[in-house]
Amino acid sequence: MREFGIKPFSELTERIPDPHLLMRRGVIFGHRDFDVVLEAMLKGKKYAVMTGLMPSGRMHMGHKLVIDQLIWYQKRGAEIFLCVADLEAYSARDISFEESKRYAIEEYLANYIALGLDLGKCRVYFQSKNDSVKHLAYILAKEVNFSEMRAIYGFANESNIAHIFYPMIDAADILHPQLEEFCGPCPTVVPVGIDQDPHLRLARDVAARVQKQFNFIPPSSTYHRLIPGIKGGKMSSSRPESAIFLTDSVEDAKWKIENAFTGGRATAEEHRRLGGQPDICVIYALYVYQLIPDDEKLLEVRRACTSGEMVCGECKAMAMDLMSNFLRSHQAKLKGAREKAERIAEMI
Amino acid sequence: MREFGIKPFSELTERIPDPHLLMRRGVIFGHRDFDVVLEAMLKGKKYAVMTGLMPSGRMHMGHKLVIDQLIWYQKRGAEIFLCVADLEAYSARDISFEESKRYAIEEYLANYIALGLDLGKCRVYFQSKNDSVKHLAYILAKEVNFSEMRAIYGFANESNIAHIFYPMIDAADILHPQLEEFCGPCPTVVPVGIDQDPHLRLARDVAARVQKQFNFIPPSSTYHRLIPGIKGGKMSSSRPESAIFLTDSVEDAKWKIENAFTGGRATAEEHRRLGGQPDICVIYALYVYQLIPDDEKLLEVRRACTSGEMVCGECKAMAMDLMSNFLRSHQAKLKGAREKAERIAEMI
Repeated sequence: MREFGIKPFSELTERIPDPHLLMRRGVIFGHRDFDVVLEAMLKGKKYAVMTGLMPSGRMHMGHKLVIDQLIWYQKRGAEIFLCVADLEAYSARDISFEESKRYAIEEYLANYIALGLDLGKCRVYFQSKNDSVKHLAYILAKEVNFSEMRAIYGFANESNIAHIFYPMIDAADILHPQLEEFCGPCPTVVPVGIDQDPHLRLARDVAARVQKQFNFIPPSSTYHRLIPGIKGGKMSSSRPESAIFLTDSVEDAKWKIENAFTGGRATAEEHRRLGGQPDICVIYALYVYQLIPDDEKLLEVRRACTSGEMVCGECKAMAMDLMSNFLRSHQAKLKGAREKAERIAEMI
Repeated sequence: MREFGIKPFSELTERIPDPHLLMRRGVIFGHRDFDVVLEAMLKGKKYAVMTGLMPSGRMHMGHKLVIDQLIWYQKRGAEIFLCVADLEAYSARDISFEESKRYAIEEYLANYIALGLDLGKCRVYFQSKNDSVKHLAYILAKEVNFSEMRAIYGFANESNIAHIFYPMIDAADILHPQLEEFCGPCPTVVPVGIDQDPHLRLARDVAARVQKQFNFIPPSSTYHRLIPGIKGGKMSSSRPESAIFLTDSVEDAKWKIENAFTGGRATAEEHRRLGGQPDICVIYALYVYQLIPDDEKLLEVRRACTSGEMVCGECKAMAMDLMSNFLRSHQAKLKGAREKAERIAEMI
């Protein structure tokens, strides 16, 4: 981790007032320059949070992780920039701009509102319609040559030019909050999974190359672990059986939990004797990442599991309850949220 | 010529009512699909002419060639699209967008107005501000891979990404008049020098690849000979001694003509005996391309030259007179034209 310049997030946690549970619990495990953002936050100065959504597939519990962070930042004075990556969806997945728009509104933005993000106070934009981003992308593109891009993204002779150009749009997304017309140069943090780090490194590199012209502060980043899929592996909307979606029916969610991969032992006897293994358990991950916000309660569950006191059946039943409550409450909010998302999208 | 699919323009000239002198005299020597444009023109149907200007250097007699054609087309019902290539100036020549704007207005657009182009009826735009063009460029970029681009433009690993992407902007410039929001699919002609043909071929190729989506008519093109430089070679604004600029003083223009390369013989005796060689003479080219619109008069000059009747001194004196008259009249119009160009640029 350190060799790529990423530092442990834990070194900063105690300086953060009321840190988010993902911070307290080490789900957010690394950062670049987050101290610069923290400084601004502590001093009540201007800072930005930037994130994007790919308008394809359905929104699942893994996506929720980022929105939970946005809500936390929004309460702490951040200016939130939210990019609908419709240019990426077009070039990488052949999704039309109309389809992207519909998806972004109905599936993503509506869920964000229902989760509690005040979207009316965010700067939401469609990449395809953001001229500042596209203009900046072109300026940044002049600073990067094909060799570098190939080394980072592995482009080949068959790569199309939209693919080759796209990373510059991505870098412009990350840096444009610092343009004078938006927040001006200010600390900016991008909360990502570790797989997104190449984009961050590129954005930091090009920021330095256009320093004279724009005076950008190198963008900060935080890195979170990804929520595991229901059967282990990756949670992904392209494999519906791996994910619990925010719009899953209670029945479907229960079924998925029933069939989840756990840290249980081969037999009940063995489980009682050796105890469960929460650190490889998908259900426990759901508790840590989402379902049990109270640290004391979480520790109690962990103790009951590792001591063998609680067996997987009981634990799953509890997870089903918590998940059902969340889904019912969330889906009730979702109805009004869709209309609101529609109205906000029409204004941008 | 034919092997690249370019046809002789002469095959169409007699079908053109009152053809431009550059057409009559074979300066425009080749075309692709110009018959499609001609058809629209003859039937009074919608068609577009597209051209661009690179906002660097000063405008000279070579640049005037294209504007003369635009004026001719404008009188014949064409919708004129005029692109200020400030993205190209930025990526290829490091010219800032502010500088491009100032240059485009004061040096180019003002001269266009003074030459007689009704700029108020043209669709003038800055590349950097034209979202339709940038959006279309991205869509087209998905259809072209790096191998093809390298084969056409010779990109290397050191080429920057703005350079690599730029030809897609160029193709979008050529095709965007045919978007529904502008003229819709319609015949479009781009008058160029032969060195610009790769751009046209690329635009035609990608038009075919997005046929289903946009229904573009393959853009037509005409090819004109380039006006020679004062001492032979190329007329170029980057070598001021090679060019007569539209803002040259009468004194400077006369000096340049005095020192021009001609088709005169080694001695006056030889010249009278063998006659001059108009086809290699820079002064004669100025007559053909610009200074003598009357065909009869031009033929008379040619006869007097080739017969040895007229010597170079006399001929140059006549060229000086014609050029001085043109420059005085043009520069008088230029004063008001600058303000007008400024007003038009503020509206776009």
